[in-house]
Amino acid sequence: MYENMIVIDRGAPESLQKQIRRQIAIGIVNRQYPLHRPLPSIRQLSADLGVSVTTVTLAYEALKQDGFVEARNRSGYYVNQDVLTEPGHALKPDVPADLAAPLATLDYRAFFRDRSFNLQRVVKPSDVLVRYRYPFVCGLTDPSLFPITSWRECVRDSVNVIELANWATDYSAIDDDMLIEQLIQRVLAKRGIVAHPDEVLVTVGGQQALYIAIKLLLKSGEIIGVEDPGYPDVINMAEIEGISVRRLPIDQKGLVLSSNISGCKCLFVTPSHQFPTTVTMPLDRKVELLAFTKRNGQFVIEDDYEADISFNKTPPRALKSLDTWGNVIYTGSLSKSLLPGLRIGYLVADREFVREARAMRHHILRHPPVNNQRSVALFLQRGYFDRFVAKITGIYKERCTVMHEALERHFPGASTKAEYGGGSIWLRLPDGADAGILRKMVDAEGVFFETGGFTFSDERNNRNHIRLGYSVIEKSLIAEGIDKIAKAVPNARDSKSGASQSARPSQFALTSSQLTRRK
Amino acid sequence: MYENMIVIDRGAPESLQKQIRRQIAIGIVNRQYPLHRPLPSIRQLSADLGVSVTTVTLAYEALKQDGFVEARNRSGYYVNQDVLTEPGHALKPDVPADLAAPLATLDYRAFFRDRSFNLQRVVKPSDVLVRYRYPFVCGLTDPSLFPITSWRECVRDSVNVIELANWATDYSAIDDDMLIEQLIQRVLAKRGIVAHPDEVLVTVGGQQALYIAIKLLLKSGEIIGVEDPGYPDVINMAEIEGISVRRLPIDQKGLVLSSNISGCKCLFVTPSHQFPTTVTMPLDRKVELLAFTKRNGQFVIEDDYEADISFNKTPPRALKSLDTWGNVIYTGSLSKSLLPGLRIGYLVADREFVREARAMRHHILRHPPVNNQRSVALFLQRGYFDRFVAKITGIYKERCTVMHEALERHFPGASTKAEYGGGSIWLRLPDGADAGILRKMVDAEGVFFETGGFTFSDERNNRNHIRLGYSVIEKSLIAEGIDKIAKAVPNARDSKSGASQSARPSQFALTSSQLTRRK
Repeated sequence: MYENMIVIDRGAPESLQKQIRRQIAIGIVNRQYPLHRPLPSIRQLSADLGVSVTTVTLAYEALKQDGFVEARNRSGYYVNQDVLTEPGHALKPDVPADLAAPLATLDYRAFFRDRSFNLQRVVKPSDVLVRYRYPFVCGLTDPSLFPITSWRECVRDSVNVIELANWATDYSAIDDDMLIEQLIQRVLAKRGIVAHPDEVLVTVGGQQALYIAIKLLLKSGEIIGVEDPGYPDVINMAEIEGISVRRLPIDQKGLVLSSNISGCKCLFVTPSHQFPTTVTMPLDRKVELLAFTKRNGQFVIEDDYEADISFNKTPPRALKSLDTWGNVIYTGSLSKSLLPGLRIGYLVADREFVREARAMRHHILRHPPVNNQRSVALFLQRGYFDRFVAKITGIYKERCTVMHEALERHFPGASTKAEYGGGSIWLRLPDGADAGILRKMVDAEGVFFETGGFTFSDERNNRNHIRLGYSVIEKSLIAEGIDKIAKAVPNARDSKSGASQSARPSQFALTSSQLTRRK
Repeated sequence: MYENMIVIDRGAPESLQKQIRRQIAIGIVNRQYPLHRPLPSIRQLSADLGVSVTTVTLAYEALKQDGFVEARNRSGYYVNQDVLTEPGHALKPDVPADLAAPLATLDYRAFFRDRSFNLQRVVKPSDVLVRYRYPFVCGLTDPSLFPITSWRECVRDSVNVIELANWATDYSAIDDDMLIEQLIQRVLAKRGIVAHPDEVLVTVGGQQALYIAIKLLLKSGEIIGVEDPGYPDVINMAEIEGISVRRLPIDQKGLVLSSNISGCKCLFVTPSHQFPTTVTMPLDRKVELLAFTKRNGQFVIEDDYEADISFNKTPPRALKSLDTWGNVIYTGSLSKSLLPGLRIGYLVADREFVREARAMRHHILRHPPVNNQRSVALFLQRGYFDRFVAKITGIYKERCTVMHEALERHFPGASTKAEYGGGSIWLRLPDGADAGILRKMVDAEGVFFETGGFTFSDERNNRNHIRLGYSVIEKSLIAEGIDKIAKAVPNARDSKSGASQSARPSQFALTSSQLTRRK
């Protein structure tokens, strides 16, 4: 099966032996050959390539001397694993200079210089739970709470649907019936949303639901309004699509209904649980927002990203549940309440809108994997989801209380304890503190948290905000972790820049302490 | 949990009883309430809503008379399933007029009229294997051949990775190591592609790989060259992104290298197995194409959509394997050789390009589901994939031969038997035949095939082309099915339009008969 990997060019100045050597070496460092089976035998290779046995023998001997292969008695040559560094590292430079092909390559770095898509985005360390004793990370599910046995059962029972998926192939046109029904009954109903199956679309995570909504509603040059502070990924999406962004101030009730909303064709809002401040928009402002946008003929994208984790018996009604005109596109996911890795999201909107969204989804990737749709549908249908959500909600509530108390001791009035629920607390550190510096300082002590400055349009003057997640940290460790942060804060100042000292606090920052006092 | 589903407005002209009635009825027809559990009890609802027991009782009794609910002794009211029509049908109109809310809704139909994304796309009947005795459908895997036991084993063993995924969350930045390694060793190596892990990106199906490549390479207004006939989904993607499409003629060796290629910033090609004609571009033209595009500074997207199903011991080398300059973006998927429903695709390109593609993937949907990445990695690593591919390739080869013989009897010289492999045969019916009419005619006889006209820029004059898949039809039924098609052909003419009679055959159509004769 490796015939295609070595190509002999008899017209080339390079000797045949060296051509073979070079190509095998590159194949080895690129992990192109399996580690536990022999490389192609000398006789085989000589026959396949039409070169002499001596040429191949010399090539293999040279590779052995260079440390790429090792000979094992009677079973031939094997990859010498010592030359392999960790995957993910740059391997090509390890090839000796005389073996590396000296090619003039296309300069992609220059090509993307003018319009790189490599925009700033939240990257959580993938080893956050292993590396940190105090992981105040956001958006993860606690692995120790996850009902792995029930999940295994649903996965096992959904394997049959694979066979089905196999022939009932066109999942571009339909989603898993059972999943749609379960989402309507168990997820949307709790938020007060009455949806018909034709009004729901399954997406690859909440992120894809947002992307499709933005792409359908806005053309290049049109304006989307985004809360300030707000969700950076939406701003990145707008940038990619050439859509203008207008940042809109929020207060302790969420988005402020001011005249600068009027120019926006569409608003992106997180009313039930504002990102990142966690404040909940009261019902009367939701009603007002709907009336306002209807008057102006505007669309609203409502991202209800942590809808399932509600501390109160009756969670706040979604904006969508009050929408009689049909201008609200509701997006959500099971990432926070089940598992982020499964990428199950959804979009709820008018059926004409969903028809277009389904077409768009087809054009960009056809459809979300069908096996995961069914596994999740079974997990919902059998009641495991409700039980799991009830369990984590109870635990998160306790952790939230403990965290808020610890924060009050050190930073009275500076943190917002979510009235609604969710998995994080938003904290405004004293003016002049720099969360980036603070994070580096506490890293060695095993503390991880997320900085908040980048969620503001004026990042420079808001570096004193942080997000503290409690979805994966043990309750008993919360106070200790907060103590460590508090101890480091006085020294976490950017001495080089004077900016933070004379900072003009953002509109939200002004009200954030009122927020907690209000309670 | 249904508190939010009914909202009482004491200021409304509608009576409280009617408000409750209307909202429960809408919830029922929208399948908002579970079928096998009682609806909220009278006492419960009266307490939740703060209305009298009598009001709720009257509402339920009215719902019972209207047929929405049924009373069961001692266990309360249940949804009356008779009012529920099939999911997927319009349910809202079934609500009696006096219960339906008379709302002025936003007109999305008008909104999308100017730029609908609901473009023509291939939709296969989802019951194709059940409904048709002769399913000449393309792109499906034969469910009877799939090694379900090995797959179950891999799925079971990958469940652990879910727990892992749970915390090692940020799969935006990395893909499953094992999957990348396996793709490099078992999939790409066969095509002669030497790829480093940093040069491979996992995508949600081959479709997403194409979409990301197109989005990264072309701005609105720039030109992509697409084979004619060619893959319609790429044309749809271009349309969505405002990218211009130039159709490029093909001959029996695939894309013709003519001067009208020069204006294209990027070419989309299927060299090893042209879509839909199945012709293979010979090595010399591949080399010529690379030299040509390098001279012109053009990018090439190579879609190797059926790469794994090769009838010859050594499959043709991918264009990418000959690419020393780095202008080829290679895309593929395991949809044809494993299961389409899993949506595992990949993209191979320069590492700078992959870095941007990864960022783009994050913005659009973060990352493909991690559990499927691992299940497929195990399936590859344990050798099940190679074994499965070898098995289906042998079977497809036999079916292909039988089908080609049957076609030669009825339409000598009109079909192209793929030199390379794959899962379908391209057939040019006599001039004047209309494949759309033909398909309707044979439908009643249990025959399904795919029409080919829509893959041409000049659809009207190429309605006499069809694609016949053999990946799911039993060998013993192939000749029978072809006989039925052949018998119907003489009457499958569009009598209304004279177009097909005087058709100017397309450039490819001219050569398609030469193709078979050549052998």
